[in-house]
Amino acid sequence: MAERLVVIGGDAGGMTAATNARRMRNDLEIVAFERSTRVSYSACGIPYLVSGEVAEVDALVARTPREFREANRIDVRIEHEVVGIDLDRGQVEVHDQPHGRTFRIGFDHLLIGTGARPVRPDLPGIDDELVIGVQTLDDGVRLLAQAERSRCQRVVVVGGGYIGLEMAEAFVMWGAEVTLVDGGPHLMRTLDPDMAALVTKALERHSIEVRTGVTVTGFEPGAVHTADGRIPADLVVLGLGVTPNTELAEAAGIALGARGSIKVDRRQATSHERVWAAGDCAESFHLVSQRPVHVALGTVANRQGRVAGINIGGGYATFPGVVGTAITKVCSTEVARTGLTELEAARDGFRAIGTVIESTTRAGYVPDTAPITVKLVTEVGTGRLLGGQIVGGAGAAKRIDTLAMAVTAGITADELINVDLSYAPPFSPVWDPLATAARVAAAQVAATPAP
Amino acid sequence: MAERLVVIGGDAGGMTAATNARRMRNDLEIVAFERSTRVSYSACGIPYLVSGEVAEVDALVARTPREFREANRIDVRIEHEVVGIDLDRGQVEVHDQPHGRTFRIGFDHLLIGTGARPVRPDLPGIDDELVIGVQTLDDGVRLLAQAERSRCQRVVVVGGGYIGLEMAEAFVMWGAEVTLVDGGPHLMRTLDPDMAALVTKALERHSIEVRTGVTVTGFEPGAVHTADGRIPADLVVLGLGVTPNTELAEAAGIALGARGSIKVDRRQATSHERVWAAGDCAESFHLVSQRPVHVALGTVANRQGRVAGINIGGGYATFPGVVGTAITKVCSTEVARTGLTELEAARDGFRAIGTVIESTTRAGYVPDTAPITVKLVTEVGTGRLLGGQIVGGAGAAKRIDTLAMAVTAGITADELINVDLSYAPPFSPVWDPLATAARVAAAQVAATPAP
Repeated sequence: MAERLVVIGGDAGGMTAATNARRMRNDLEIVAFERSTRVSYSACGIPYLVSGEVAEVDALVARTPREFREANRIDVRIEHEVVGIDLDRGQVEVHDQPHGRTFRIGFDHLLIGTGARPVRPDLPGIDDELVIGVQTLDDGVRLLAQAERSRCQRVVVVGGGYIGLEMAEAFVMWGAEVTLVDGGPHLMRTLDPDMAALVTKALERHSIEVRTGVTVTGFEPGAVHTADGRIPADLVVLGLGVTPNTELAEAAGIALGARGSIKVDRRQATSHERVWAAGDCAESFHLVSQRPVHVALGTVANRQGRVAGINIGGGYATFPGVVGTAITKVCSTEVARTGLTELEAARDGFRAIGTVIESTTRAGYVPDTAPITVKLVTEVGTGRLLGGQIVGGAGAAKRIDTLAMAVTAGITADELINVDLSYAPPFSPVWDPLATAARVAAAQVAATPAP
Repeated sequence: MAERLVVIGGDAGGMTAATNARRMRNDLEIVAFERSTRVSYSACGIPYLVSGEVAEVDALVARTPREFREANRIDVRIEHEVVGIDLDRGQVEVHDQPHGRTFRIGFDHLLIGTGARPVRPDLPGIDDELVIGVQTLDDGVRLLAQAERSRCQRVVVVGGGYIGLEMAEAFVMWGAEVTLVDGGPHLMRTLDPDMAALVTKALERHSIEVRTGVTVTGFEPGAVHTADGRIPADLVVLGLGVTPNTELAEAAGIALGARGSIKVDRRQATSHERVWAAGDCAESFHLVSQRPVHVALGTVANRQGRVAGINIGGGYATFPGVVGTAITKVCSTEVARTGLTELEAARDGFRAIGTVIESTTRAGYVPDTAPITVKLVTEVGTGRLLGGQIVGGAGAAKRIDTLAMAVTAGITADELINVDLSYAPPFSPVWDPLATAARVAAAQVAATPAP
């Protein structure tokens, strides 16, 4: 009899694992359970659906259940929620929502891809239909419908991280008055305060009101209540980050790790044999801090899913980890980071130097050249690049990949100076901003004796 | 008495060396001789001056002689041509053009930054004023003036490399009928034929007529003669590459290396003590092929000049070499390369695999997403990345820097799969095209037993 792989959760982690397992093993029976109505979609595309840049919700769906069935022989069952994992018997318990019945099904391999859910603080009025979090495509559709109904003249976005910025941009494109509220001392706490300040300035240039250090105390139709008073709001969008969905795994006795995510080894194996995890529910390893971390990003989900699938299929693959790369844009301002910030480096016990330089995205004399600010974080003594941050105009942020590669390879600022980066006037100054930053950083390292 | 540094040639290699030497040694006397009327300008910007995107020739000048004098205490003498180097006496012989006199001046250190000159084949009519090469800013000004005079309805560009492409673009922007003639089997011989074919297609889409395998036999006012017949031309632009200007160095007995460029060690020292070279006249080292090469690019000139200047100033710096990175664009098509092409790898004795993938520059559903083709060249057995080539729409080509870094760091295709590259829908698909290419390349490597 064929072995069976059961997949819990039909998005990036789960379905990438399923298709990779299929590629490795033709004989495997593969069943994937998804509690919502859609699988394999781009949650990251929701802001662009809301803004109207993406016209059709279906555009965000990479593959339908039918396509998985026909192309990969994967039995995808939507509106089927796994409600229990029985490791002793090797079974999961599944609730078939349309038929209102529950059944059990056995597995030889189990892939947990239960994802994450948006943080919804327990505040008065949080359940109001005009207070919307954005995680699933259904959330996106609901948000769009509400935006159309409310005409959203005044929108409050709660949370100044990546999703918060992207949703703020989406509603600027609607012509709304947008207020971004954040309880912390500054927006974008994945950046150092000096770089985050540039983002705040950019938001204000794009007519987004930024209110930091403001604690939200509750919601009512037409307003957000804060410790500093009432902010009028036709619509409230929550962008407060996510927590991994790991109740099922935890209840089954599977070990959890960083921030409650499922502990996995480099092959995406959990604490239990033949049980694997991938995606927003699973732990990652940070290659610079050398610590387990929880990163809920589509790129990581796809990479982890691929590795899990290859291993489930009898192959061998490892996911070495992340360096904390992230990128976003808000209107014409691009933002990216990789590695450790100066604050993170200090927290992780590094003695590090922060170097900030200003340059232009293209040769200064070329039309459409735009300002770019690069910050490098470099280790004292060794000069090793620990991280980088970029804020700038069009063409600025994708340069972070070069730094991600440099940080992964463990090269020094001094080495980065002479790396053969490309140059032509429409693409960069003759010293690419990264090389300019490296020159200044290397000089600072040389001038800073290791203590 | 103060030591004196004499610099021959006032462009990137020479002036970067001069300013870096000044930074290291305040007491040094520095004199720079430049035979033309301008120093420290961006020759790479000439196509954008000709196209009209850059309105003022002065915009291409990074710094004037006066600025060097005032900011760096460098005595820059324009219209002064060094006509001889006397190593035994430690002197150079200089022709002062405006005063029509020649004098000698002693040096303690000598930096040769004599650059390169465009290839001008010895053909009938080559000296016609409507046949213009593009190297100095004066060439650019002359070309622009001729273009205005001739109204350039029909322009023939001879040579299908980087400059050829950029000049073709410039004249498309003038509304000219542009024909690009190349004697080789395909354009862009720094790319593999399969990738170069994509560039040819793009040029044709931009209404540039491409004629390869066509040998130019001569010029007359109004036409270019070829082995295949006459091509009407109001203006002819030569883009046939450059050769290093090393007659002075050679006459002085300084050793030459790759393609007649000045042989230098990693500190930019020539075969003679206290004589240094940097820029288009100097040799480089290719980090992948491990061979001396001649690369005439502004990035290399600046890096070499910096290293030479630090060493002249009594510091210590090395230029490890290049990986052959280059980038250009023609209209909306971007082109870039790094490392070795498949053909170059074979020529250099590698057993290599070429992997070509097609993807999009952004998420497929985002407006303004554009096609991108990535080719990776990977070593059989080790899987090490030897090089990469990119052709695509806006945002495609600058990704080459990530590959340049990867090739420099010596990572494998398998490792590249899991590098934490950035993703958000406006910047890339969830698998960046580089990661997609790495997946395919790694699978090909795994399927190809080392012989």
